Parts: sequence; structure tokens; C-alpha cells
Amino acid sequence: MLLDQINHPSDLKKLDLPQLETLAGEIRSFLIEELSRTGGHLAPNLGVVELTIAMHYMYNSPQDKFIFDVGHQAYVHKILTGRKDQFQTLRKYKGLCGFVKRNESEHDVWEAGHSSTSLSAAIGMATARDLKNEKHKVVAVIGDGAMTGGMALEAMNHIGHEKRNVTVILNDNEMSIAPNVGAIHKYLSKIRSDKHYLKAKEEAEHLLKKIPAIGGKLAKTAEKLKDTLKYMMMSGILFEEFGFTYVGPVDGHDLEKLLETLKQCETLQGPVMVHVLTVKGKGYSPAEADSHKWHGISPYKIESGQVLKATDQPPAYTEIFGDALIELAEQDERIVAVTPAMPGGSGLLKFADRFPDRMFDVGIAEQHAATFSASMAMEGMKPVFAVYSTFLQRAYDQVLHDICRQNLNVVFAIDRAGFVGADGETHHGVFDISYLRHLPNMVLMMPKDEQELRQMMKTAILFDQGPIAVRYPRDVGKGIELTPMAETEPLPIGKWETIRAGKETAILAVGPMMDVAIKAADQLASEGIQVEVINARFLKPLDAGMLTSLSQRFETIFTIEEGSVLGGFGSSVLEHYALHRISDIQVIPLGIPDAFIEHGSVKEQRQEVGLTAEHLVTEIQGRLPLQQKRA
Amino acid sequence: MLLDQINHPSDLKKLDLPQLETLAGEIRSFLIEELSRTGGHLAPNLGVVELTIAMHYMYNSPQDKFIFDVGHQAYVHKILTGRKDQFQTLRKYKGLCGFVKRNESEHDVWEAGHSSTSLSAAIGMATARDLKNEKHKVVAVIGDGAMTGGMALEAMNHIGHEKRNVTVILNDNEMSIAPNVGAIHKYLSKIRSDKHYLKAKEEAEHLLKKIPAIGGKLAKTAEKLKDTLKYMMMSGILFEEFGFTYVGPVDGHDLEKLLETLKQCETLQGPVMVHVLTVKGKGYSPAEADSHKWHGISPYKIESGQVLKATDQPPAYTEIFGDALIELAEQDERIVAVTPAMPGGSGLLKFADRFPDRMFDVGIAEQHAATFSASMAMEGMKPVFAVYSTFLQRAYDQVLHDICRQNLNVVFAIDRAGFVGADGETHHGVFDISYLRHLPNMVLMMPKDEQELRQMMKTAILFDQGPIAVRYPRDVGKGIELTPMAETEPLPIGKWETIRAGKETAILAVGPMMDVAIKAADQLASEGIQVEVINARFLKPLDAGMLTSLSQRFETIFTIEEGSVLGGFGSSVLEHYALHRISDIQVIPLGIPDAFIEHGSVKEQRQEVGLTAEHLVTEIQGRLPLQQKRA
Repeated sequence: MLLDQINHPSDLKKLDLPQLETLAGEIRSFLIEELSRTGGHLAPNLGVVELTIAMHYMYNSPQDKFIFDVGHQAYVHKILTGRKDQFQTLRKYKGLCGFVKRNESEHDVWEAGHSSTSLSAAIGMATARDLKNEKHKVVAVIGDGAMTGGMALEAMNHIGHEKRNVTVILNDNEMSIAPNVGAIHKYLSKIRSDKHYLKAKEEAEHLLKKIPAIGGKLAKTAEKLKDTLKYMMMSGILFEEFGFTYVGPVDGHDLEKLLETLKQCETLQGPVMVHVLTVKGKGYSPAEADSHKWHGISPYKIESGQVLKATDQPPAYTEIFGDALIELAEQDERIVAVTPAMPGGSGLLKFADRFPDRMFDVGIAEQHAATFSASMAMEGMKPVFAVYSTFLQRAYDQVLHDICRQNLNVVFAIDRAGFVGADGETHHGVFDISYLRHLPNMVLMMPKDEQELRQMMKTAILFDQGPIAVRYPRDVGKGIELTPMAETEPLPIGKWETIRAGKETAILAVGPMMDVAIKAADQLASEGIQVEVINARFLKPLDAGMLTSLSQRFETIFTIEEGSVLGGFGSSVLEHYALHRISDIQVIPLGIPDAFIEHGSVKEQRQEVGLTAEHLVTEIQGRLPLQQKRA
Repeated sequence: MLLDQINHPSDLKKLDLPQLETLAGEIRSFLIEELSRTGGHLAPNLGVVELTIAMHYMYNSPQDKFIFDVGHQAYVHKILTGRKDQFQTLRKYKGLCGFVKRNESEHDVWEAGHSSTSLSAAIGMATARDLKNEKHKVVAVIGDGAMTGGMALEAMNHIGHEKRNVTVILNDNEMSIAPNVGAIHKYLSKIRSDKHYLKAKEEAEHLLKKIPAIGGKLAKTAEKLKDTLKYMMMSGILFEEFGFTYVGPVDGHDLEKLLETLKQCETLQGPVMVHVLTVKGKGYSPAEADSHKWHGISPYKIESGQVLKATDQPPAYTEIFGDALIELAEQDERIVAVTPAMPGGSGLLKFADRFPDRMFDVGIAEQHAATFSASMAMEGMKPVFAVYSTFLQRAYDQVLHDICRQNLNVVFAIDRAGFVGADGETHHGVFDISYLRHLPNMVLMMPKDEQELRQMMKTAILFDQGPIAVRYPRDVGKGIELTPMAETEPLPIGKWETIRAGKETAILAVGPMMDVAIKAADQLASEGIQVEVINARFLKPLDAGMLTSLSQRFETIFTIEEGSVLGGFGSSVLEHYALHRISDIQVIPLGIPDAFIEHGSVKEQRQEVGLTAEHLVTEIQGRLPLQQKRA
């Protein structure tokens, strides 16, 4: 195996082209084999095998800086930089990260997880290099999907202005996670599909020289034509408009051509955009056939491509949301769905089939998605903005300035709230309570189970007083029976639910923490301690009546949430009492401490921060004896 | 006066072209006259007089929807829609808003304040219109500066995809607040400066028809040329790449041409981009000569253009920051400054003169600015990201995901923290404590005076443990003497300062609230109540030692901050005690309640929310008698 000899990029440089091609095949087999056991981002990585080899062959990492947009396509880079033996720990607790990770290797120089940051990172590194009079290369790899993100376009604008040496490799696989939408996508398709494009460009340049030979009147018009053509040439394509030298498109699986192209770029000054065409899932037919499914995949059988999943699981919250939305939309024509490039991940594929005209995939563009929703609400529609908690961070200002400030009836369906497991610190939805609850006019809910999610969806659609959000975990439901939507009661805004009565203290639990609270209460009950459990399903507004009652009955209460303890739900309870000058109750908030929590299973992550029944029991026991106040 | 007859857009339609031109002159005089007394956004509004008249003449507001990007260029729109008599209250408390405001008029259909939202709003309104089978027009007016904002580009991408009827008027005045930077700006300049561009385009189209007449071998190449040219034509310019029909450029002060152009657009289907060239400050020579200064202006003398400002004021915090940065940068080559289109507003003009290579104005692009800073920090530079609090909201995710998560040494200089006065609810910097303090690794400071700002700048530059932010108000300093930077001591991280000792209670004051606290303490002292006053200059990390000491000495303490009371500094003190299980102290947080506070003076805004010495005294008196605990 050639692969066994590659422990550092310098090892690559000893190989000739046929050997590099053999190596590419070996890496592909390695990925297919390893990921069949661990799962991971298979299709994106199969797409960049040759590209990553070519980069490490042509450049000198870590002196030259490689910046991978999003960073989930860096497995080949990890293999080539001495980490292939760690792949059995991929995306596991304390194991190899699924993204670029600086503490793993000196070859990992920039971390991401969210899309579209690589161009900003590249120009920043190039600027620092020039200010320090260093000479290395800065190479960013960005997918065509990520190019629609506003900050990538902001960065292109700045790169075109600065004119520094930066190489941007546009890894164009005709889709990011979902098929691309938008004008940029069409533009790339045009270049891709027009095989004669480059040839025509060359010929036209050649013709320019010929035209002056024509005599007479035509010569004059031809001269003008030449000027015009030159003008059009110079500003011919989008990237050149932005000040890049555009090179490509080149077949991203043809190593010889790739090396040739990167070699050619060496001589160019200023920003260069290399347009590389790749196939997601290349070399593994199930993944090539359905690259969406194989974007991020669970363990599978190699031969059949059959995914090994726990069977008989209840439907996920994502699916429950999607189904509920269809039922509601059948009854309410105002409902439209908006997703920033996540129609599948957000459970909206069935909705898109059922209501194609009411489904809007705007590409990776969370800011636009939010304000687009705002203005539809302004005109009487009922937009449902379905978005992962972590990606909604991108639209914080739009949620504040456009939606909450104008108090518009936008519904937020915030998926993947809380820990997300293997994707780790860049993807957790653990800040949204803290960044949403201080926004005036916002209503924020989280259900204890999937039936309550349906109730909250109905509540949100019927609510006409402003923005309302429901957040739910990246998890399956409990498998409980669902009430038809017509018979589902909306919730009174700001009313909590007492799950069980207690005497010594109360736990205010948010969403999935309800199960933790109940388990703790059960154990304490077996020790003779009666703990009240409250479903704090409204994170804003709080249930003022119940809070007053709790303060009259208990000396100490506990809050538990799978979110940052700073500025979170517990903090809002503390504030409520402080603002109402209620001082004779102690609130003990449990949540995620002030740190970023790395990848692993959700269970391990909860364990790490103490969001477990065991820890909750210990906390309560540590406060004993707790006394109920005299009523 | 024709102007006296215009109370509704329909009144305009009775006028002929010469009358409309006369009206334009009258409106200009009106603006120059009125704003000489109230101040306001003079130059932008003088630039759009003809454009706004043309829009109201051609379209039917409010059926047709006008969306003004940012919204500070809507004065002419306000004049034409029945609000001219309210201009003496412009930007005053309870008076006419300086931006588009829905509660003022049915003609105001979309509010803004932050840049680059108008295209998202336009496509949202057009989508809602089409879904409801309505027929009205949607017209967005966006400046060339705002076009560099990522969300505008996200929206363009989506508009190009949707193909709905939307008219975008690109109000190109060759600058937004600051001269534009970036590739888009250069691109527009190219179109503007090439007077033959449109003519050449027409001629080339004409030539296309002629070429087939040429016989022989040339015919074949000519045919190819034709294809290429057609190709280039179709995709000729940036906006057409994005799927717009591009019309222009047209002189924005030539009413006849403007009306003609808008008329021509009537027949076009799909998204149309009308490129209008305007001059900021048009018709008032001082404003034309220095449109930056006259972008937003205080009252002035009309004849001389002399601005009437309070004389002998101490330097503003903005200026203190800029000067301090220069002193620090003289000693530390790592320091670079980054601004998103606010070199003047952020006090960086002198820095730009002194260190042109270390100054980066990236255009209206807060997201990119943050991540660009992150990657420079990654490479050992010391970027200082100077930004208004309200605009930093745009970069929340980048601050979280790129800077705090990677724990990079970026310095944030957050200007205009707290109330901003006349710009009102879209521009207050009242959320940054709430959206920054829950981010792991962040250090957050606010000075009590300008000398402390200098100390904090030095502290921030010397700090090498991760991101550190200093926020300061939109205000002048106190005029105190400044210590040279070399003799200025950095602050120990997380240490507060006791300003005066007290017996009954303590006030923890943030930034400008220190003066409020001292005034309150003075008054209470005169009543025999000794109140301790603490300068809570670190908002994160808190001074744990002092908080413990306070809890041992006092039963009740007060916090006061000019920021949202939800998730703010007071909330962090409550959390601190709760997390440390200290329950025998009551914290009373004073701050801005859960609402958006409208325009007026800062004094009026503080009055409205009770951030005054009087209110603080009342609050403290209401808790009397307060007892010091036994030590």
C-alpha cells in the first residue's frame, strides 16, 4: 500500500503521477472502509481526494496555509498529514474531529463548521503575511453552495479590492448539502454546461487580432466591435468582475490536469479563482447516486450501501415538525416555509412536494432568509423559518432589527437546539436562549415531547402578536401517540405545566431536561424527598403566576436547561424574581458552563457538563434539608 | 409655492415636467432650511429629490410598495406624503422619525436603520404579492455602499432565482457614508466612467445582425464570434449575471430622463436594476463639497454652511479611542485597524493617515470584518475591530464561531454603546452586553471616563489570552487630563474599583451610569445614607472577590447599566451569586426594560426608562432601612 508510506505531505512529493493516482484509489477505499464503521461526511470527502492530493503535492503545508470552508471535507487532508491511524475514533468523544482542528495538527490552521468563512480567513492570512513580509501561499477551498453565503461575497468584494495573492479553489460539485439555488448556481451551471465556453473565449481573443484586416466601412464598426468585445471580455465573468483571475473549469478528478492547473496558477499575481468540477461521492456508487443522503452518513454496509440504523425508532422531532407544518398549511394558505439550504435537514421535503409554491429554499443565506420572512409577514403571510439553532446565529441582527423591532408574525422552527453530538462545538444549539430571550417581542418555547411540539406549532401559527419561536432537539421523539392537528389545543402563551407536585423543592425543566428532572425526582422520591417538576415550556414570557406561587411555597428551586447557563433560562428566572423584588427564594441554575463543548455523543456531552439525573440528585441532596414554606 | 399644494402623492400627478422641476427646487430649499434648525441626514436626501419625485409620479404609493434601504434618505418621501409640516420635530422625542416609520404613514411600509435589508424585503413583498395574486409594484431603493453588505448579495442571488417582478433602484452616489471600497465599487465606477458603454452595447447588438453578411471563411469565425459576443452580452455585467435586467446608468437629477427610464421599466418582466447616478448634497454647495461631513449634520448656518455646535466641548470617546490607538500602534507593529465603512465615525481617519498600510476599511461588511480580523489574529497580528455596537449585531455568529471559539486575540472597540439619541431604536447599542457576555473566552469592559478608556485600550492590546472588547458611549468625555500612554497602567483583568465607600448598600455602575450613581449617592449622603459606589468596569469576567465581599457586607445591592436588563450586567451578577450558591444578598438590577426605545435625546431616553439619579434614589429609598451586615 502506498498509503502506508504517507505520514507527511513531503512523502507525497516522492511519488510520480501514476503513483499519485494509485494513492487516490487507496484513499478512496480507506474512506469507504473506515466510514462504514464510524459514519461521517463521506460524499464530500470522496469528492476531493484528487484535489487534496494535488494541493499537498503542489504546495508546502503548513508553511502554505490551507483553509477548508466548513471543514468537513478535510478527511483526505487529515489522512495525508499523519492522522490516518486515528480514523476509528472519527467524531467520537476525545477522538478525531470531523472538522479541521488546530489542536490535532500543525497542518490545521483554520477551524470552521459554519459555511462561507474561508474567503475572509484567506484574505486575513494573506494580509498578515504581507505585513510581516512573509512569502507563503494562502489557499482556500470553498464549495459552490458556500459561495451564496453573504459573508463569502463580502470577502470577495474585499479580496478584489486588496489584490493580494490568494488562491481560491472553487470546489464546484453542483450542490452543497442541498441542490443549490440562486443566480450564482445558474451562473456556474452555464460555465459548466457550455463546453465551448473557454474555447470560444480563446477564439474570440484570436479574432480580435484578425478584425483590423477588414477594410472600408466595416473596419470602423469592427473596431468598435473589438472595443466592445474587449470590454465584455475583461469584465466577462462574475469572478473577474470581482477582480479575480479566473482559471478553469478543470476536472477535479483528473490529477494530471489539476496539477497542471495549479502549476499554471503559480505564475499569476493577485487573487486567483480556480474552478474545479468534482463529483460528490466519487468512486462509491451508492454515494454518487444519492449524494444528499451520503453527505453525512451513519455506519453502513459497504457492498449494499445499506445504512445501519437503529430500527423501530420513533420519528425524529424534525419529521414531526415537517408533518405538523403540512397539516397546518392544508388549513391555512398564509403559511409558507423558508429554509437556508436545509430542506432535507429541516424536514421540509414533504412540504416542498405538497406545496411547491409555498416552499422557499434561499441557499446558504440565513440573513436573507430572516428578512425575506419578515417582509412576507409584513404582507400578511405566515412564514415559518426553519433553521438549525447554530445557523440562526448568522441572522441575529435580522431577527432583532427586522423581525422583533417591527414585531412581525414570523414563526421560527429552531431545530437542533441543545447538544448535537458528533458535529461538536461548531454545531451545538446551546446559545439561542441567551441570544433570543433578550429581544423585545420574542416568544420562545421548547416542548417536552413531540405531541407538545405539535401543540406549539399550532400555537405559533395561530399567534398574531409578533415573532414566536419553537426550539427542539436533534433527537427522536418518545414514540407517544399524536393527536390529530384539528383536535390539538394551542397553548396559552406563557403558561407552564406542573408535571408532578412536590413538597421540598421544584425543578423547572426545559425540553429534554424534563426526562432528567423526572428521573431525578423518581430517585429522590425513593429517598422520601418529594420534588415538584415543572415543564417550563415557555422560555419567554415566563409564567409569572407560577413563579410567584413557587416563591411562596419553596425556599429553593432548580432550573435545568441544555443551553448556556449565562443569559439562559435559569438566568431569566433569577432576573424575574429580582425585577419583581422577590428575594426570599434561591434559584439554582443548571446548564452548560461558560465553555465550548467538543464532539462526542450527546450523552457524553451531557455527562461532561453535569446535565444528568445523577448530578441533579446530588445538587438537590447537597441543599437538604429543604423546607416547604408555610403557605 | 407648489410645495404647499402637495399633501399626497396624487397631487404630484397633476403637475407637468417644468412644474415637477420647480417642485424639486422647492423641496431642496425646504430641506436646507428645515435641517439648518433640526440637523439630520441632509446630503443623502438632497441627492434623491428628483428620484423620489419620479417614483411618486410614476408609481402609486401605498398600493405600490417603496422600500428605502437604511431609510435615512426618505425625507423627500415624507414631504410628498403629507408630513412636511412636522419637520420642525425631526429626530426629536415623540417627533418625526429620521427613518421610515410605519406608525407615521401608510406610505411607510418597511422600516430599517441598518443597511442592506431592502432587497430581501423587496423579494419577500413580491413573493407575498404573487401568492396573493395581487398586482402592485415593489420598488427598492438601495445605495451603492449598501450593495456590499452580504445580505444584499444573498438577496440578489435569490431574486435572480425567483424571477419575480421587482424593481431595484441603485442609488449610486459613489459613496455611502464613507467612500466605497471593494470590487463592486470599482465595477460601478467602470460603468459610470465609460460614457460609451451603453452606446457600444447598442452598436454591438446592431452589428450582430450585420455579421452574417460577410462571406467565406471569415463568416464561420464571425459566426463563432457572434456566439461568443452574444454569450458575453447576455452575461455581460454583474447584475445581469445575477439575473437582473440592467437599465442605466441614468442621471438622477434629470427628471425627464428619470421618468422616461422608469416608464421604460414598466414593460420589463422579472427583476430590473435601474442604475441611477446621484450627487450627495446636490444643490447645496457646502454639502456637495464635503458630503461625508454633511451625511448627518447638526444645525448649521445656511449661508456659510457653518455648523452650530456646542463649543469648548471635551473630545468625544470616539476621538480618544482613535488617538489612543495611534499611540499604541506607534509602539506595536502588530496593531492593525479594521472598520466596516466607518473610518470617520469610528475615529480612525488620523490612524489611516498615519498607518495607511495597517488600516482596513472593508465596506459595509461586518461579518467579513470580524472573520478577517480573526484570521489576522491567527497569524499573530493584533487587529482592532472598530464598530458601532448596533452594527456588531451583524457579526454575532462570526464573533462566536470564528473569534471566541478559536479564542483569538481580536480587540473590539465598540463605539456608541448605550442610547444614541436621535437615530433611535435601530441604532441604540443596548444589546451588546446581552449578546456578548455569554460567549466563552470573551472579556468585556466599559470605562467610567476617557482616561479609563485609554487604560482599557492598553489593557486590550497587551492582553494575549483571547478576544477582549471595550465598549464606550456616543458622547464626549469629561475633559479630564490624560496620562501619556507610556505612563498609563493596564488594568488587572476582572478587577473592579471602589469609587467611594458606603455602609447601607452599594451601587455597581457601568460606564456613564457611574455619574448617575455618584449623583444618587451624593443626594442620599445628604440624607445620611452612605452608599458605596463601585466602578464595574469589567462586565466579564466579574470581580468574584469583590462580589463575595459585597455579599458579606450588604443585604441589598443595586446594579445600573445603560443596556437591556434582560441578560445584561445585572443579570450576570445574579447568575454569579446563584452559581456560587450565595443566596443571602438581594441584587436589584436597573437597566433598559424589554422594549425598543424610540428617538429623542439621550437624556429623554434615560428619563423614559428610569436611568436617572432621581429614579435610583427612589429605588434605594424604597428599600430602606438597609442594614450593613456584621462583618
